[in-house]
Amino acid sequence: MRTLLLKKEDVRGLIATEEVIAAVEVAYKGFNSDQVVQPDYIGIDLHPPRGDIDFKLGYYKGNEIISMKASSGGFPNNPTTHGVPSGMGTILLFDARTCALVCVMDGSLITGLRTGAAGAVSVKALARRDAKRVASIGTGNQARMQIRAISQVMKIEELHAWDHHADSMASFKADIELELGIPVFLANSKQAAVEQADILITTTRGKGSVVEGGWVQPGTHIVAIGTDAKGKQEFDPEIFRHAKTVVDSILQCSEKGEIQHALRLNILSRDRIHAEIGEVLLGKKSGRTSDEEITIFDSTGMAIQDNTTAHKIYQNALAHGVGTFFEFIE
Amino acid sequence: MRTLLLKKEDVRGLIATEEVIAAVEVAYKGFNSDQVVQPDYIGIDLHPPRGDIDFKLGYYKGNEIISMKASSGGFPNNPTTHGVPSGMGTILLFDARTCALVCVMDGSLITGLRTGAAGAVSVKALARRDAKRVASIGTGNQARMQIRAISQVMKIEELHAWDHHADSMASFKADIELELGIPVFLANSKQAAVEQADILITTTRGKGSVVEGGWVQPGTHIVAIGTDAKGKQEFDPEIFRHAKTVVDSILQCSEKGEIQHALRLNILSRDRIHAEIGEVLLGKKSGRTSDEEITIFDSTGMAIQDNTTAHKIYQNALAHGVGTFFEFIE
Repeated sequence: MRTLLLKKEDVRGLIATEEVIAAVEVAYKGFNSDQVVQPDYIGIDLHPPRGDIDFKLGYYKGNEIISMKASSGGFPNNPTTHGVPSGMGTILLFDARTCALVCVMDGSLITGLRTGAAGAVSVKALARRDAKRVASIGTGNQARMQIRAISQVMKIEELHAWDHHADSMASFKADIELELGIPVFLANSKQAAVEQADILITTTRGKGSVVEGGWVQPGTHIVAIGTDAKGKQEFDPEIFRHAKTVVDSILQCSEKGEIQHALRLNILSRDRIHAEIGEVLLGKKSGRTSDEEITIFDSTGMAIQDNTTAHKIYQNALAHGVGTFFEFIE
Repeated sequence: MRTLLLKKEDVRGLIATEEVIAAVEVAYKGFNSDQVVQPDYIGIDLHPPRGDIDFKLGYYKGNEIISMKASSGGFPNNPTTHGVPSGMGTILLFDARTCALVCVMDGSLITGLRTGAAGAVSVKALARRDAKRVASIGTGNQARMQIRAISQVMKIEELHAWDHHADSMASFKADIELELGIPVFLANSKQAAVEQADILITTTRGKGSVVEGGWVQPGTHIVAIGTDAKGKQEFDPEIFRHAKTVVDSILQCSEKGEIQHALRLNILSRDRIHAEIGEVLLGKKSGRTSDEEITIFDSTGMAIQDNTTAHKIYQNALAHGVGTFFEFIE
């Protein structure tokens, strides 16, 4: 019985951004078509300065793959003391027909890739057709992932960036202009960036509200990425009072997403959450219906995105003869 | 960063029964010394004729290893249709200091090994010193595992066996006599086997009560293995009314162990569960205190047994240069 092993550098070369976007669309549609089993995830918190590790399990009936992603993060001393990254990941893929282990791949890159693609899927589904200007609050790795993916689904004419750290902003500008040829304007304030936006992306660490409701212009589409745990926050909850709110998973977002605060404060009620994004993609619920409405996509990230993305990587590896086979059972 | 890969045949040769017994003792003691983090396990049930797969996570501070065991079972068509076993397993070991993946090993054998060792640990802690005769209700693979391990901690002079299937009994007798030189007597009835027992082991599928309370003689130690899920049962719950009940985990056994029925029927109350076995091993609670009392060890199996057993296999592999290294991250 053969198991394919894929190292980090294999994974990097095995999937294009547009394939990740397609895989994430498949995941969202599957989730809203009773094709997905996705138990609560389990994890272990270690004592500081160590971080945590969690295990996310997903089964997609459409590809008959069960995926398990182990994902660690928050080990600041790893690079200096132990010579390994501060966060790592491993993905197991099982053939759901037999539960044979068909692939073990490094999972360091997949969370970033599928999260970046999530924003792009929401832009296709919810942003104005004539959107041209993107604002990015936060200029770290996930901001780059978002821009890379969104630039596949629209032409970004201007990118307005803001970050607490001036040097982070500067290198973001240099990288994006070089890689994608999009002119990047460094904003003087968060508000100035937000006011420019047809599409607003937030990828901060979610340590508190950074965007006030009044700054957001009519017609803006918001991609809210940074809040993926209880207690995290990026927005003034008032933003949800008059916006059209779309989430990846109502269950997850109610607990861990940006909407947690608006729900707690009764600014948003459960029945006013417009849709899970898979419902919009499947045509079960409407997307944007006017050029004036503010749409918000609250993304916490689902195991099933890892599943469909990793499966595509596995298929590409088989097709191109990449990777190393190992027989755990002969 | 190197990850050690161990195939099934590597694992088979890398650990002796007495090492598994020692590892399981370490696990039980750790569990009752606040050295263990063991979240609820997660799993996916597939549609028949497919079975299920579950994922059990454990962290033992004593060895600084986080283990995750994926374990599937109940796929009767696997061997004929797909050429793979009906149940399989994979274990990941992470260095808890960094969460680096240090080992991926086949996990097909470990559940059987550490479950067999559990019975032996309980015999050391709870059986009469002069115990000589063992009765085994059930004669499948786990019955063999139990006898192999228990024969390491006592001299079994007679083994009385019973099973629904006569051919299973016959091959059990042949195998045990050849491998261990213990005389095996095939009982005419369950009752006849049980009445002979200084130590009674049950390893049936738990499809209903097979042992009546009145059959069990004073002084017997019972190793109750077959019940590891809600609804399973091997004993008349009355057995718990006057016995000394020891479990691996009160939390797990209350839900999935043999005691579930006695608790539900108020034959046993929570405060009458004498101990978790780690407490007995640590001397925090007494073991057997007379030759007349009936002791029962209810074992559901814990992730931390996988952890310490797999870690010992990993250490032995490193010491003997067995296995294949792979760099998921270069």
